[in-house]
Amino acid sequence: MKTGKYLSQLLTGALLFACLQIQAQQTDYTIKAVPFTQVKFTDQLWTSHIETNRTVTIPASFKRCETTGRVKNFQMAAEKKDKFCTVFPFDDTDIYKTVEGASFSMAVHPDKKLDKYVDSLIEIVGKAQEPDGYLYTARTIDPLNPHAWAGKDRWVNEHDNSHETYNSGHLFEAAAAHFQATGKRNLLNIAYKNADLLVKTFGNDKLHVPPGHEVVEMGLVKLYRISGKKEYLNLAKFFLDQRGQRKYDPKSANPWENGSYWQDNAPVIAQNEAEGHAVRAMYLYSAMADVAALTGDTSYLSAIDKIWSNMTGKKMYVQGSIGSIPSGERFGGDYELPNSTAYNETCAAIGNAMWNQRMFQLHGDSKYMDVLEKTLYNGLISGVGLDGKSFFYTNAMEIKHSFSHSAMERERSGWFECSCCPTNIARFLPSLPGYVYAQSGNSVYVNLFISGSADMTVNSKAVKLVQQNNYPWDGGLLFTVNPASSLDFALKIRIPGWAQNQAIPSELYNYKTRSDSKIQIKINGTPTEYKMEKGYAVLNRNWKKNDRVEVNLPMEVKRVAATDKVVNNIGKVALQRGPLMYCAEWKDNYGLASNIIIPVGAAFTTEFNKELLNGVMTLKAPAIFINVDDAGKKISTEEKKVTIIPYYSWANRGKGEMTVWFPEKIKYVDLLSN
Amino acid sequence: MKTGKYLSQLLTGALLFACLQIQAQQTDYTIKAVPFTQVKFTDQLWTSHIETNRTVTIPASFKRCETTGRVKNFQMAAEKKDKFCTVFPFDDTDIYKTVEGASFSMAVHPDKKLDKYVDSLIEIVGKAQEPDGYLYTARTIDPLNPHAWAGKDRWVNEHDNSHETYNSGHLFEAAAAHFQATGKRNLLNIAYKNADLLVKTFGNDKLHVPPGHEVVEMGLVKLYRISGKKEYLNLAKFFLDQRGQRKYDPKSANPWENGSYWQDNAPVIAQNEAEGHAVRAMYLYSAMADVAALTGDTSYLSAIDKIWSNMTGKKMYVQGSIGSIPSGERFGGDYELPNSTAYNETCAAIGNAMWNQRMFQLHGDSKYMDVLEKTLYNGLISGVGLDGKSFFYTNAMEIKHSFSHSAMERERSGWFECSCCPTNIARFLPSLPGYVYAQSGNSVYVNLFISGSADMTVNSKAVKLVQQNNYPWDGGLLFTVNPASSLDFALKIRIPGWAQNQAIPSELYNYKTRSDSKIQIKINGTPTEYKMEKGYAVLNRNWKKNDRVEVNLPMEVKRVAATDKVVNNIGKVALQRGPLMYCAEWKDNYGLASNIIIPVGAAFTTEFNKELLNGVMTLKAPAIFINVDDAGKKISTEEKKVTIIPYYSWANRGKGEMTVWFPEKIKYVDLLSN
Repeated sequence: MKTGKYLSQLLTGALLFACLQIQAQQTDYTIKAVPFTQVKFTDQLWTSHIETNRTVTIPASFKRCETTGRVKNFQMAAEKKDKFCTVFPFDDTDIYKTVEGASFSMAVHPDKKLDKYVDSLIEIVGKAQEPDGYLYTARTIDPLNPHAWAGKDRWVNEHDNSHETYNSGHLFEAAAAHFQATGKRNLLNIAYKNADLLVKTFGNDKLHVPPGHEVVEMGLVKLYRISGKKEYLNLAKFFLDQRGQRKYDPKSANPWENGSYWQDNAPVIAQNEAEGHAVRAMYLYSAMADVAALTGDTSYLSAIDKIWSNMTGKKMYVQGSIGSIPSGERFGGDYELPNSTAYNETCAAIGNAMWNQRMFQLHGDSKYMDVLEKTLYNGLISGVGLDGKSFFYTNAMEIKHSFSHSAMERERSGWFECSCCPTNIARFLPSLPGYVYAQSGNSVYVNLFISGSADMTVNSKAVKLVQQNNYPWDGGLLFTVNPASSLDFALKIRIPGWAQNQAIPSELYNYKTRSDSKIQIKINGTPTEYKMEKGYAVLNRNWKKNDRVEVNLPMEVKRVAATDKVVNNIGKVALQRGPLMYCAEWKDNYGLASNIIIPVGAAFTTEFNKELLNGVMTLKAPAIFINVDDAGKKISTEEKKVTIIPYYSWANRGKGEMTVWFPEKIKYVDLLSN
Repeated sequence: MKTGKYLSQLLTGALLFACLQIQAQQTDYTIKAVPFTQVKFTDQLWTSHIETNRTVTIPASFKRCETTGRVKNFQMAAEKKDKFCTVFPFDDTDIYKTVEGASFSMAVHPDKKLDKYVDSLIEIVGKAQEPDGYLYTARTIDPLNPHAWAGKDRWVNEHDNSHETYNSGHLFEAAAAHFQATGKRNLLNIAYKNADLLVKTFGNDKLHVPPGHEVVEMGLVKLYRISGKKEYLNLAKFFLDQRGQRKYDPKSANPWENGSYWQDNAPVIAQNEAEGHAVRAMYLYSAMADVAALTGDTSYLSAIDKIWSNMTGKKMYVQGSIGSIPSGERFGGDYELPNSTAYNETCAAIGNAMWNQRMFQLHGDSKYMDVLEKTLYNGLISGVGLDGKSFFYTNAMEIKHSFSHSAMERERSGWFECSCCPTNIARFLPSLPGYVYAQSGNSVYVNLFISGSADMTVNSKAVKLVQQNNYPWDGGLLFTVNPASSLDFALKIRIPGWAQNQAIPSELYNYKTRSDSKIQIKINGTPTEYKMEKGYAVLNRNWKKNDRVEVNLPMEVKRVAATDKVVNNIGKVALQRGPLMYCAEWKDNYGLASNIIIPVGAAFTTEFNKELLNGVMTLKAPAIFINVDDAGKKISTEEKKVTIIPYYSWANRGKGEMTVWFPEKIKYVDLLSN
């Protein structure tokens, strides 16, 4: 039976992919993620999200691709007739991204009907491809259609407005996932044909252009890993190096004028700040990590190290979101993290998770996983409602009555005209198991604490690692190590920064509540000494069947303060418990949330409420509420209990006020007449 | 003696200019402004401003042109060596604009020393001009200097970044003023040489480009009026028609991507909204008015009529400022008039005055002068401090402690790196007398109420019109009409909209306080019937020496409300008395201004305080102040007297809170911890 199981696994695309990967290249990340196909979840929080994604989000996403005309665009491109019938030329990618999500999903949850449907879509996609491999329905239908953002000639607007290589990139990512999940080559061949056209078109003595919206670089790397075709990797590198060649006005503060909007203001290896459109930035930095790993080029590495330090040291919200500025969906300046207008695109959070996993694979440091965990449990998953079919494009830090007329999203939407975020969620969630474990030589990394199991091969021996916990609600972690037979290896368990009095990111935030930072680890019930290495508790021993490792992470409520350089958080605290950031919503707090002061010393109690928001740990404390009388001329102060909930779960009960930051005391009031 | 006076006037450039003007063209504005050289001020407010401008602002401005390297740039361009030593390629224009201001000033206040100094500057300017007429010091010194924002070739970056035609435009304006004031041709010849190069370079079968920052069109019109050279007018029209020819993304909301930043998103005759960079817009619309007047082209007229309605109906602050959005110094969308981040560039207010005078000259309607008066007495003159040497680039609507870290200017600066506003003030103020009176055939218009006199010729007969009043503090206006001998003509006195219960602009604002709107006019002490025509009280009679006209404008304090579409003003009022908008400053109000509620019905008293801010009428009323206790946890409500001052006079006593809008009652409070 055991053999049978391994055999059946051998037949999956995942392993096939892994084999091809080894054959294809010499150099790559020394630390490799344990593929998501080897990891099963049994926890409550993520299993529920992934299952909802499978049963609700992905089908709804395909349905919307049909009803909005996205599928029809491919059909019309095939027939070269009618009019492009959606709004954006990159609407093609919603199909690719949903196919990618469906593929990830099918890999662990086979579904013949879905498989057949995906094949039918791939057929439609294939027909829309021009004979030489070009695939961009808006231009194929009508090159002069203004919605194509292209031009009479292909790629002439690529450097700023068209998304021709962007569409290619998502095609490649979807094709890689589809092949990996199903072993089928129907989408992969379409992708290859398109990639070959790019290889033929772009290069040193050919067309030069920086991709207008990065992602093709990541996609090319994935095709390279599958095919071993060096040209794909070279083209990815070529595209990276095209940035910073155009002439802009370096004195201008306007990101479109100085080129930073597109990360085009300097050659990538000379960049040292997280700048411009945040999603573009995340895909760029991810591709730089990939190319650095695959080529050993240290100049990319050195640049993304600096950029990462800038982003996490100066440009990240306390709930892990990035890209603060609505205009241009982009990074602001250092410490420019306003709460009232925080943009925080869901796609940027997803890109940030992708980038941080790559940074971890390059450096083996837990600080990247600390950022990834923070993003994942807060500003990323807040992007989808508990129903799996309502989404945030942006993720607010506060909603006040005074902002009732602002552009900030106060409730989730079914889809968006620009619907990148819902389909990005659809593809990200089923790939999440691939973020939990990693291996490098004799080391096994545990990065996330999600109940379930992972099947690995360590030193050619099968090892099953089982996690049982009630994380993120409880800090007690239990790991059962099950090697096929006893085996020496290092189990490296991430000890989160937050569990050691280190707020994340630690340059921007700090804890006003400090706890004993030494974490006890028991092996088979006996406390054990361990050393810390790059943020991991290293347990190096001869592991035997059913060895039990217990770790207890402290779960007190923490008051988080921001550096004074984030001016609008001075005098305020955010609240954290475990990896979760919390917020107050109007619903639990007498109708408002902007009127709450949580004084220094107010003691919190915790209470798990399984009826609430699919089950959440709520926090309560005595607080001060400021109220305005009905005549609008008197203000009073009242002591009452505040109830706070995990940030990710807000906006699932209608719309109203919400806040992440609470004043501990106030200096002034702003009078709002509306 | 009288003859001698007229003879001496004949020798001034002003009359020479007027004669040339008549000779040069067939068509022009049917309503002509009485030139500023014919108007003398004796009032307190403006005389003091103009005198400070003459004795402080202009000398300080020249001095700064020297100390900052602006003059040196011209010297280096002459010698083609060293490096451009300031920041912006348009820094050249600060010299031109100050020369323009000095010229206006010398025309009414001869000053040999200044005249000689100006000549010495003109000599330096002339040497910097390239042999074929090109004049743009940054490029002449070094075409590849990034500060030149130009390119290896001239004008290649003109369409967006370079300011080559912008510099030409201000050169032309300065040259016209200098010639008009002094009769000298030294600067004029430099301007002609540069204009001839433009004529040679640009045109239908020559170079095509929309000027990157409009003003050259206005400048060319001025040179056309002096020279009669039709090519200048044609080129102005050509430049106007170049807009809207480039390809942008019309779907983009980004003004740089859709071209609206430069008013380049559509042909000018198809534009119908005030859009993009506000100063650029004002200069464009002014030029369109000029060309419409000079060519009789009704398509320009029809476009600027629509644009004017859009701007005054949807995009103007209550104190007359325009250009609400900091990013791009530009117009926002309809009703996008936030108080906390109002940009309101001083230059835009000056441009708005220029444009509205032209609109009045086209239409003869007082509504344009209503807007001009509002801008002039409030959001324009607020741009310069009472000391004449401190300036606002932006003009705030409110300053709160909570914004203490924002980019809004809270105190005036000596100069700015980009110092367009101080030099624009320097050239505008001495030209102000030219905005007061106008003539058309048998009609004499009185548009502004400033004590002093004007010398006109009506039906070939000399008429002196004298104003004696204490405006804007007092509504009693006295006009003495002094024809050389008795004479039939129509005296048209503007009855301001605000004096007839019409807030300005009336589509955006309305009065909650209404007064009897019939204004009594007495001639030689006897009440007289009059009819209203386009906002003017028309007094058509046989005027005799020393005929006295009395008008009494109501001067009660008015509560101004905004349309609910301006969301952040709902439930609030601004306060107006006469043409002046008022504000509360921290200094008179117990340290803050953001904490004041002025309830419905609170009665105002007025008090002229001649020691305060060079003499201002203050308003006082019982109000409600909201205070936070020292511990930051309790809030209380207190009734106290509020003191408010004219908006133009704020920020002359150090920095602190200020507000224009006051809640009448409040709905919520925002708690500020910093």
